[in-house]
Amino acid sequence: MASVLGIDVGGTKVAAAAVEGGEARHAVERPTELAGPEELLDGIEAAVDEVKAAAGEPEAIGIGVPSQVEFATGTVLSSVNVPLAGLPLREELGSRFGVPVFVDNDANCAALAEARLVSDPPARHLAMLTLGTGVGGGVIIEGRIFRGATGLGAELGHVVIDAGAEGEQPEGEFPRPGSLEWLCSGIALEREAGRRARADPESGLGRVLSGKGRVSGRDAGALARAGDAAALDLFAWHGRHLGMGIAGVVNTFEPEHVVIGGGLSRAADLFLETARAEAGRWALPALWERASLRAARGGADAGVIGAGLLAAQELARARDSS
Amino acid sequence: MASVLGIDVGGTKVAAAAVEGGEARHAVERPTELAGPEELLDGIEAAVDEVKAAAGEPEAIGIGVPSQVEFATGTVLSSVNVPLAGLPLREELGSRFGVPVFVDNDANCAALAEARLVSDPPARHLAMLTLGTGVGGGVIIEGRIFRGATGLGAELGHVVIDAGAEGEQPEGEFPRPGSLEWLCSGIALEREAGRRARADPESGLGRVLSGKGRVSGRDAGALARAGDAAALDLFAWHGRHLGMGIAGVVNTFEPEHVVIGGGLSRAADLFLETARAEAGRWALPALWERASLRAARGGADAGVIGAGLLAAQELARARDSS
Repeated sequence: MASVLGIDVGGTKVAAAAVEGGEARHAVERPTELAGPEELLDGIEAAVDEVKAAAGEPEAIGIGVPSQVEFATGTVLSSVNVPLAGLPLREELGSRFGVPVFVDNDANCAALAEARLVSDPPARHLAMLTLGTGVGGGVIIEGRIFRGATGLGAELGHVVIDAGAEGEQPEGEFPRPGSLEWLCSGIALEREAGRRARADPESGLGRVLSGKGRVSGRDAGALARAGDAAALDLFAWHGRHLGMGIAGVVNTFEPEHVVIGGGLSRAADLFLETARAEAGRWALPALWERASLRAARGGADAGVIGAGLLAAQELARARDSS
Repeated sequence: MASVLGIDVGGTKVAAAAVEGGEARHAVERPTELAGPEELLDGIEAAVDEVKAAAGEPEAIGIGVPSQVEFATGTVLSSVNVPLAGLPLREELGSRFGVPVFVDNDANCAALAEARLVSDPPARHLAMLTLGTGVGGGVIIEGRIFRGATGLGAELGHVVIDAGAEGEQPEGEFPRPGSLEWLCSGIALEREAGRRARADPESGLGRVLSGKGRVSGRDAGALARAGDAAALDLFAWHGRHLGMGIAGVVNTFEPEHVVIGGGLSRAADLFLETARAEAGRWALPALWERASLRAARGGADAGVIGAGLLAAQELARARDSS
C-alpha cells in the first residue's frame, strides 16, 4: 500500500495520522477552527505538517468531512456544522500539499474503515448506519465506497420507513417525519424521551425531566441500565425503528455485514438485540441469514483510518487507469 | 460488441434473440414449458437453436429469469412461477450450448436494457422499479448491474415504506404489510380496488365488483380513464405510495434516472405524476433535482435485449480480467 495520510474533520476536532496496515500512526488532534474556511484549512494544514514531520511525506491524502461532497471534483456542496460549504476542498488542499487529495463524506470513510476492521481480508459488501445527531449511511460494494452518480448517494437516514409516523416538520425541511433519521437519530431519541417523560412524570424519565429540564440520551441510557422500565421501553422503541431501517438496507444492498456506528452506538447494548429481532421480521430470509449485524469496531481513529484507506484505494485506481 | 444472444424466461413465454447494437434481431418466442426443469430447458434450447439458425453462433448467451439467482454460479435459488428452483442454470445451459452463459434476475436485465434505451451513451446510474404481480428492483451502478454480495440484492419491493400500514400477513410471509410490494404491486392495486368497491358500492368500482365479482387493474384503469372519481382516487393512492418508494430509491442510490416498468407501467399516465409530486416531498432536493423519472421505454423486447447486454458486458469483463 502506498504511504498515505488520513484526515477526519469533525464539528469539534480535526484528526490526522499516517495510515499503515489499517492502523493510525503519529496521530495528531486539534480543535476544529470554525471561524471560517481559511482558518479551518490552516488548522488542517498545521495538523498535516505535524504528522508529516514524524511520518514523512505521503503519496496521497484522504480527508473525510461531515458534508455532502461531489466526489469527482472534491467540492463540498453543503455542510451544516463546519464552514466548508461551496469549497473546492480537493483543489485547495491539493495545492497546499502538492500530492493527490481525495475528499469524501465522513460516513463513507467510516464504512471503509469498518470493512477493513470487520474481517481479514476486508469485507467486500458492507453497509453502515451512523447514529449521531442525525443518521448517516455508508455503503461498501465490491470493496469500494458506493457514492451514487456524483457522490450524494447512500443518504440512508432520509429513507422513509414509517410514512404515517407522528411529527411536525414544514414541507421541504428534513428529516421528514417517518424517515430513519426522524426516528433513530440522537435528536429523535431525546425528543421521544421528553415526550415519554411528559406523558409519565412519575417514571424515571419524568423525574429527570422535572429535575434537569430535559432528558439527554446519556440520562436515558443511565436510567435504562439501572433498570428503569420507561427508559428500557424508550430504547426498545428506538431499536424497533432501527431494525426496520436495517431490514431496508439488507433488502436493498445484500451486505455481508451491517455495522451500527456513531455516538449512539455506545448504547448499542440497549437496542441492538431489539433491532436484530425487528430486522428479522422485515428482511427477506435469504438475505438476512447471510448478513452479520454488529456495533462498529472503529474507535476514535476510525474516521482517520477510513480517510487513509480512501486515499490508498483511489491512488491505486488512478494508477490502474492511467 | 461481441455477438451475443439474449433469452428472457417469463411465466408464460420464452423469448430469444440475437442482440446487436442494443436491438433484438431474429427474435423467437415459444410458450414456457412448465412441466418440469428438463422440459423448460429443452424449450429454451429449441428457441436458441432457431435464433442461431438465422443469426449464427453467438460468443456468449445471457438469460434473464423470474427468480433469485446466485450470480457467480448461475444457480437459481428460488423461483415461484417457473420450475427452475435449485437448478445450476449456468452450467446446464453452458454444456448444452458450448459458449459462456450468464444468468441473472429478469428485473436486473430489464434495468440494463433501460440504461441503454434512456440515453446515448447508456446511463451509468439508473434504478428501475418493475410493477407487476409483485414489485421488482433493478439497479445499474457505473454502468453495471448491481447485485449485492451474491446476486440477491436490490429487492426494492421488500423495503418497508409505511410500517404502520394496515394489512394481515402471517409472520415470515412476504410481502410484509407496509412494504413497497404490499402497497404498489398489481395485487395491491386490485386488493385496494376491492376494498374501495366494497366501501362504496355506488361508485364505478363498486358497480364493477357487483357485476364481475372482482375489480381487475384493467377495470380500474378503464374507469379512471372514463373519469370515475373513486378509480382516479385509487390510482392517486397507488401513486403516492410509489412516490415514497421512488424517494427511497433516490436517497439511497442517487440515480440519474428512475424508470418504472412492468405491466402496471402501461397505466403510468394514471399515477406517475402523483408519484412524482410525492417523491419530491420525501427525496432530498440535491438528489431529486438531478434525477429523471419516467415510464420504461423497453417494449416486449426489453428482457431479451437486457439479457444480451448482460452477456456482452460479462464476456468483456471476463476477458479483461484474464
